[in-house]
Amino acid sequence: MVKVAVLGATGYTALELIKILLRNPQVQITAVTTRQEDAPPIHMIHQSLFGRLDLKCEDLSPAEVCNRAEFVFCCLPHVASMEAVPRLLEGGCRVVDLSADYRLNSPVVYERWYGHVHSDAGRLGKTIYGLPELWSERIPGQRLIANPGCYTSTAILGLAPFIKGGCIEPTGIIIDAKSGVSGAGRTPKLNTLFSECNESMSAYSAGNKHRHLPEIEQVLTEACGVTVEAIFTPHLVPMDRGIIATMYGKLKNPATDAQLIGAAREFYAGKPFIRVVDHLPATKDSAYTNYCDITVRTARGQAIIIACLDNLIKGAAGVAVQNFNLMCGFPETTGLLA
Amino acid sequence: MVKVAVLGATGYTALELIKILLRNPQVQITAVTTRQEDAPPIHMIHQSLFGRLDLKCEDLSPAEVCNRAEFVFCCLPHVASMEAVPRLLEGGCRVVDLSADYRLNSPVVYERWYGHVHSDAGRLGKTIYGLPELWSERIPGQRLIANPGCYTSTAILGLAPFIKGGCIEPTGIIIDAKSGVSGAGRTPKLNTLFSECNESMSAYSAGNKHRHLPEIEQVLTEACGVTVEAIFTPHLVPMDRGIIATMYGKLKNPATDAQLIGAAREFYAGKPFIRVVDHLPATKDSAYTNYCDITVRTARGQAIIIACLDNLIKGAAGVAVQNFNLMCGFPETTGLLA
Amino acid sequence: MVKVAVLGATGYTALELIKILLRNPQVQITAVTTRQEDAPPIHMIHQSLFGRLDLKCEDLSPAEVCNRAEFVFCCLPHVASMEAVPRLLEGGCRVVDLSADYRLNSPVVYERWYGHVHSDAGRLGKTIYGLPELWSERIPGQRLIANPGCYTSTAILGLAPFIKGGCIEPTGIIIDAKSGVSGAGRTPKLNTLFSECNESMSAYSAGNKHRHLPEIEQVLTEACGVTVEAIFTPHLVPMDRGIIATMYGKLKNPATDAQLIGAAREFYAGKPFIRVVDHLPATKDSAYTNYCDITVRTARGQAIIIACLDNLIKGAAGVAVQNFNLMCGFPETTGLLA
Amino acid sequence: MVKVAVLGATGYTALELIKILLRNPQVQITAVTTRQEDAPPIHMIHQSLFGRLDLKCEDLSPAEVCNRAEFVFCCLPHVASMEAVPRLLEGGCRVVDLSADYRLNSPVVYERWYGHVHSDAGRLGKTIYGLPELWSERIPGQRLIANPGCYTSTAILGLAPFIKGGCIEPTGIIIDAKSGVSGAGRTPKLNTLFSECNESMSAYSAGNKHRHLPEIEQVLTEACGVTVEAIFTPHLVPMDRGIIATMYGKLKNPATDAQLIGAAREFYAGKPFIRVVDHLPATKDSAYTNYCDITVRTARGQAIIIACLDNLIKGAAGVAVQNFNLMCGFPETTGLLA
Repeated sequence: MVKVAVLGATGYTALELIKILLRNPQVQITAVTTRQEDAPPIHMIHQSLFGRLDLKCEDLSPAEVCNRAEFVFCCLPHVASMEAVPRLLEGGCRVVDLSADYRLNSPVVYERWYGHVHSDAGRLGKTIYGLPELWSERIPGQRLIANPGCYTSTAILGLAPFIKGGCIEPTGIIIDAKSGVSGAGRTPKLNTLFSECNESMSAYSAGNKHRHLPEIEQVLTEACGVTVEAIFTPHLVPMDRGIIATMYGKLKNPATDAQLIGAAREFYAGKPFIRVVDHLPATKDSAYTNYCDITVRTARGQAIIIACLDNLIKGAAGVAVQNFNLMCGFPETTGLLA
Repeated sequence: MVKVAVLGATGYTALELIKILLRNPQVQITAVTTRQEDAPPIHMIHQSLFGRLDLKCEDLSPAEVCNRAEFVFCCLPHVASMEAVPRLLEGGCRVVDLSADYRLNSPVVYERWYGHVHSDAGRLGKTIYGLPELWSERIPGQRLIANPGCYTSTAILGLAPFIKGGCIEPTGIIIDAKSGVSGAGRTPKLNTLFSECNESMSAYSAGNKHRHLPEIEQVLTEACGVTVEAIFTPHLVPMDRGIIATMYGKLKNPATDAQLIGAAREFYAGKPFIRVVDHLPATKDSAYTNYCDITVRTARGQAIIIACLDNLIKGAAGVAVQNFNLMCGFPETTGLLA
Repeated sequence: MVKVAVLGATGYTALELIKILLRNPQVQITAVTTRQEDAPPIHMIHQSLFGRLDLKCEDLSPAEVCNRAEFVFCCLPHVASMEAVPRLLEGGCRVVDLSADYRLNSPVVYERWYGHVHSDAGRLGKTIYGLPELWSERIPGQRLIANPGCYTSTAILGLAPFIKGGCIEPTGIIIDAKSGVSGAGRTPKLNTLFSECNESMSAYSAGNKHRHLPEIEQVLTEACGVTVEAIFTPHLVPMDRGIIATMYGKLKNPATDAQLIGAAREFYAGKPFIRVVDHLPATKDSAYTNYCDITVRTARGQAIIIACLDNLIKGAAGVAVQNFNLMCGFPETTGLLA
Repeated sequence: MVKVAVLGATGYTALELIKILLRNPQVQITAVTTRQEDAPPIHMIHQSLFGRLDLKCEDLSPAEVCNRAEFVFCCLPHVASMEAVPRLLEGGCRVVDLSADYRLNSPVVYERWYGHVHSDAGRLGKTIYGLPELWSERIPGQRLIANPGCYTSTAILGLAPFIKGGCIEPTGIIIDAKSGVSGAGRTPKLNTLFSECNESMSAYSAGNKHRHLPEIEQVLTEACGVTVEAIFTPHLVPMDRGIIATMYGKLKNPATDAQLIGAAREFYAGKPFIRVVDHLPATKDSAYTNYCDITVRTARGQAIIIACLDNLIKGAAGVAVQNFNLMCGFPETTGLLA
């Protein structure tokens, strides 16, 4: 039985994480935290947990967390995360950090995109980026894993087979991504109000201004052994959950749809959560699951790669549990095939 | 007072058309038709018209239509339209045809994309494509106008200033377009059921298989005087109405966002329905209006052009009324600025 | 030409009001206000107004408003409204107040439901409640009109014909009402976030805790000449706009559906915005219009009355313009039949 | 290992059923059927099943089903179900029938509401109605269980504690129920198209015309030992799944909210899927789960009872698996607490 704490438990990702962990008979959730004082029990913050998890949501210090748990899912926002993680590690906890704080290798790049000096810069470049489909063998021994961003996973999982396989050029790639609103978090903001989002679709951070871009390029570059450059345009879609990324890359050599689909299938052979499909996937197909659906088409010398996943599950909480399973020596799919 | 008939009045486009025409004091709607027998009054088909239009929805022949009306909006599906239009013209009516039947210049291209031999091929290449922002001067004298497709208008209005202005390469263009579900029509089909579309987003006709592609390329090629080639991926979005097209074109020369926005503003100077904006537009901004919102960003030598419009209004019924206004000598904006 | 100001212009009701007023050729909008400092132009707050209204959104005092306008639509929240209205009236403006501050007749009742002492209590009981379908003759001479609440209008318009006509008992009435989310306003709150509301429906203020109840009972009691008592349960529906109220009242005498529908039709004869229909109306039928759709069914000695309207139009901005039209001597439907 | 067949596998309920059964290690799905010829594999009908269930969807006779399976979930529509069920039972299968065919006790009542003579009338009145929270002890020995309707379960679970407990009068009850669109099934129809349902809410079958009413009254009458009479108004809500029923009953004696909530808690003590809550539940709280959330408020001598559940899970597939578990001797919650 692993004693687990969830830090920053009031958000949507934490809720999904808790639901997944409740399915794992070898996990006991021993602490859920918030930085708000006098918070109510977790089932009053997330009413769907009523009768399922009876724990107070507390404002605990890292030290107090380490007294209660041996494994921590850190769902704090960036900056808050880099303050807590070193103390959690020192206190003996293993950590999956779901923020962006340990994803980038360079403190300079971090500061450029996040506007903060990194206070734990020594761990950048040494922390494993937890995308098990790329390098699951790197994960088991780790004490800290940087959990990938949701757009990032979608883009990387879709592009990696074709860049690494030499099917498409590694530069000039276009990533046109569309996400459900839950990706924007649970803090009340004008632009995520129902009456702003509903019946509306829009791009944001267009012109390569979104923070997931350096993460996408860094990981693809490392995974594929070639410098990857992309244009990334995220969009907000009037739905709760799901990301679809439609990606365009120049074919190096002529190829049919079937050849490219075959290449992706081979690349992901044995990976339980990747479904390379012949049809055009809808985000609904993978909603509420840890699957990522991928397909590809061709036209005029371009590969049109489509990848879908649930931003809160495979894009956040689900992959976090994959990392947890690998770190703890559980089967990778534990709690994730429901 | 112009006597107007709406053919194929049971669909969503026809409903919007009727609502717009009801605002025009110089229009009298004298016939609304359906190919179903024993149809009820139009306000029982479209309950929102209750108390606003009291007309039976009838199965009328073109000859009967010509007895009742002098101007026809033909909202029939393709093939049905090419059968009715010649007889309407012979009967003395002027026609805006909202189907695809008169949009393409070549009967060979028509047959390839629509799978039917064109029975009125003599009019192809001679019928004016009714996109007033490109060539409003061509429209006034016409007896038949081919009304543009919804994706088509979005793509063309967004791309034309930059291709014609020599800002971007005319080939290698990527059009990643997202549409609300009403664009798929009112005939019950599995893929447009609420429970299929809601909380889901997906691409369709990926790999340049959508019929609006040859239309986009033909019109842009003609309007810009250069061969235009694109990759076009349409998507279905869980919302009623609205299209957003995110388009990528290689910059011929370095340019700033502001320079490109300025170029588009100049291109559309005096066009009442085009709003070139600095911000990133949402489809909601132009929903229920005849506006098309356009902006542009740059990154890594690419222009990222974003265009939004309401697929049923500016993408269909609204531009049809623009064409009607121009054909009848009314101010172009009549009934369209509500 | 009437010079008009809109106070509290950043909300959804104000936006709809502005759109309606822009259709009225005899209105000039001369001021739009907010209590935020350094607000941007109104078309940057409401992007849909780009190119349609070019006015700065300013933090103006009532005196400054009176220098610019002769008629004011006050869209401030309650309490703020009672502070501004007396000074607007003193400054010579006529006012339609869209807040709750002048709807109730009794300062004691006001304080009980709104938790504030009323600072302009002398006007309570003397201000006309602006529901033109009940007493349009009272409105023309007024300098101040209290504009009805959205649930209130729906319930009153549905029930009045049957209570006043003696068809149903005036007590024991059940009002089960369902509203789109825009009714909750544009201030960011957790419970109106997209990811909270979407794919969810819930009751709120159940157990007669909603502030529109005393307003419903007061107005129906006065309009029908009999003490009306109801149970009122509002619900939040995952849609932008629209209210449907399903109401249950005990029939005093046996009656058929047709007899009751006939009675309602007679009651509302000549009222341009009330549509008494035979079918079961959907909120979509009246969305984006100033119509209220009403029908009735019977079962087991009960009348089941259904009323639908657009909460932002007929439930707020549209009826405000009806009141404005009546106060200014314009035709009641001006700008409202689009 | 129980070999299980799902008949009528193309619908939404069957999909949910399959997903739940896939979580049960003691179940093997051996057949999925449709009445369409040449149907594709089930994972091409329900793309979300790709990689999870690799079975052809076949047009099998009851005899063929009995060769493959020992337990059948019959998701056929009514009438089709009464034709298949006797032959499945004769062939040795145990059956949970999810249609309405075996729910009513009287063939006369069945014929009145469903417009068909019942061809297996001998089983009416003898088949156990499978609502385990009312009488789980009746279920284990059965070979055929009639699975409840979705509105029915919501209404009964909400009302039973208060009628049986003598808190409210058994007649004059009002059931105002609101359902997501998936309850209307997967057959393409105009009224369940996205563009008809989205951004719209409406009542249907108002005036006690819905077929779930006789079922509600029959079961409550039997369960509570007193004749129950209600008015039932269902509504369609623009969401995929979830039902909320707001129900009104006259209190026999004065009672506080807390007393009534306490009574319900006592009534459902030990029932793992009923959550009696203090707060007002949203349908989202129980979405994708087998929970039913219940609370109650009082006003003016009425109890206002609110019950929420997921129409496809607790309202159909989930309770079917509860029945299956009880019939097979598995723990009632197997596969249902994910």
